[in-house]
Amino acid sequence: MSRYWSSVVHKLTPYVPGEQPKVSSLIKLNTNENPYGPSPKVIKALKAGAGDNLRLYPDPNSDVVKRAVAKCCSIKVNQIFVGNGSDEVLGHIFQGLLKHDKPVLFPDITYSFYPVYCGLYEVPYELVPLTKDFSIDLKDYQRPNSGIIFPNPNAPTGIATELDDIAQLLRKNTDSVVVVDEAYVDFGAESAVSLIDDYPNLLVTQTISKSRSLAGLRVGYAMGNAELIEGLERVKNSFNSYPLDRLALVGAEVALADSEYFEKTRKAIIDSREKLIMHLQNLRFEVLPSSANFVFVRHSEQDAAELADKLREHSIIVRYFNKPRINQFLRITIGTPEECEALIAVLKNILN
Amino acid sequence: MSRYWSSVVHKLTPYVPGEQPKVSSLIKLNTNENPYGPSPKVIKALKAGAGDNLRLYPDPNSDVVKRAVAKCCSIKVNQIFVGNGSDEVLGHIFQGLLKHDKPVLFPDITYSFYPVYCGLYEVPYELVPLTKDFSIDLKDYQRPNSGIIFPNPNAPTGIATELDDIAQLLRKNTDSVVVVDEAYVDFGAESAVSLIDDYPNLLVTQTISKSRSLAGLRVGYAMGNAELIEGLERVKNSFNSYPLDRLALVGAEVALADSEYFEKTRKAIIDSREKLIMHLQNLRFEVLPSSANFVFVRHSEQDAAELADKLREHSIIVRYFNKPRINQFLRITIGTPEECEALIAVLKNILN
Repeated sequence: MSRYWSSVVHKLTPYVPGEQPKVSSLIKLNTNENPYGPSPKVIKALKAGAGDNLRLYPDPNSDVVKRAVAKCCSIKVNQIFVGNGSDEVLGHIFQGLLKHDKPVLFPDITYSFYPVYCGLYEVPYELVPLTKDFSIDLKDYQRPNSGIIFPNPNAPTGIATELDDIAQLLRKNTDSVVVVDEAYVDFGAESAVSLIDDYPNLLVTQTISKSRSLAGLRVGYAMGNAELIEGLERVKNSFNSYPLDRLALVGAEVALADSEYFEKTRKAIIDSREKLIMHLQNLRFEVLPSSANFVFVRHSEQDAAELADKLREHSIIVRYFNKPRINQFLRITIGTPEECEALIAVLKNILN
Repeated sequence: MSRYWSSVVHKLTPYVPGEQPKVSSLIKLNTNENPYGPSPKVIKALKAGAGDNLRLYPDPNSDVVKRAVAKCCSIKVNQIFVGNGSDEVLGHIFQGLLKHDKPVLFPDITYSFYPVYCGLYEVPYELVPLTKDFSIDLKDYQRPNSGIIFPNPNAPTGIATELDDIAQLLRKNTDSVVVVDEAYVDFGAESAVSLIDDYPNLLVTQTISKSRSLAGLRVGYAMGNAELIEGLERVKNSFNSYPLDRLALVGAEVALADSEYFEKTRKAIIDSREKLIMHLQNLRFEVLPSSANFVFVRHSEQDAAELADKLREHSIIVRYFNKPRINQFLRITIGTPEECEALIAVLKNILN
């Protein structure tokens, strides 16, 4: 505490990201990173990009990334906003599009950064409980609001929401922005990008951190009506002219263009997930239906926190949230086939 | 304009950065980049860093950069805050430390991002006029305020403020934070970092964009009392857990450690500046005394805007600000000796 802090700082409860251990001997299944490295074309482009030009500022508008996203998603460049990771993009969205008089709505169990943004920008919010089976029922969101945000698939549950349900919500909820946070969409859910031409209040966010294997490069983007994008550009250009460095621009451009590598690794992760789910069920885990690169599981007998500790003793780290409703669950990132096998072997050892 | 924008967005006047032309045939003297590439050790480390580990999130705390700054500036790690370029750092400072009831004070002629931050965070401000000779007189800042910020040396004038004057201000102004923005300090001003142990309300910002030749990598930092730093960390961790990507971390770490290359290129730029000033004076330019990697000049006969246009016709771009008091000045970045010679040759051609 300091008398020099602005009043808002005293009230903040910052987000706590998953641990990034500084030793590499662990099997790291705690922050939903891709188990495969980025496309070899990305590595090559980054090595080529590391040169004297780094003395120059990057393009403040991230045009090469916007063009790559436009091509990838078959949309227009003026329907795209790019930021330093989708967390930064979400921050600008809360400040620039969701702050009005009424509360913003999001699920009670979801990405725990949303209430943190609300604290930073002094945005009121209301939590909407997930259903008994931990899914999002968008009919519950038809109430007065200044904005709605939810991930699809949701995190940490991994459960997807149907595109028809999203379209129905958009038809009912026309006075505020609806944000679909698609960080994990490529692992099994259907993207709402196809709806942005029809609904001027729909905003879809995506990232290259997960399905493009570039969490280390920090690039995210939002897609929606050009007017929403312009609002975000105004916020961004009042905060940081150059949020993406030259190497991030190059890496994102090449990653988004390499659809072959993307499809190959994405399919491998989905295959591993399905196998892992089968093994986990055999070990008496309940596994929520996952459309993501992680599974959210609880064991019929074992306490989740204790189990996380035991896994750690065996050099495997998973994510445990000590929160109501989910404090008997573990979120486990899908690793390589070898990592999944190691996890199952250790679990067998612990549980038997 | 959109009804979906938060009210603050309607009122924003975003910052307009200097042009980043997409052709490389121009002599680019408009955005104060370093004319020399980054240290060869940086390039080597970046090429080595471009690998499979980019699938993993970076260290959210930027520890390697903090340690490098701590060593460079002989301060403690908990006295350092790191951000995605000093613009982001400044944004967090305005939001987290300068927003109180009274106005923030800064010079009428200075970095034009300051009033933009005030717009974004709804911080009241008062402009304090530079003296007649375009320097900052800190005695003019002894009035009620919620914070004081000025660059040293100032931009776009290039004029430095004495450290004794800063210490005197700090002795008088103890109730609010004083920010010294040292983006250009390495080219001839004296850093106020030596004062941070004595004044708990002093914050000093620096960047690797200028003297470390890495504008393309986006790393800036603030140095001050641990309590001020903690306030900034709280804001950052409520906005973006991972503002620096893995390559930016590596590049900044190595750049800050390579003092030999830093000293060599810094000296070369200072030498070029002194030669350029002499030539410009011979061509009847008034040159404000510069402690930066740019000069701020006006010609006794030529209109500044016209002159900027003519230079552009000769493929040289400089920065012109169409603003009261300085609309007859040009800001010219110090280039390589060859670029400085080309500039002088073109100016001779235009002026004769």
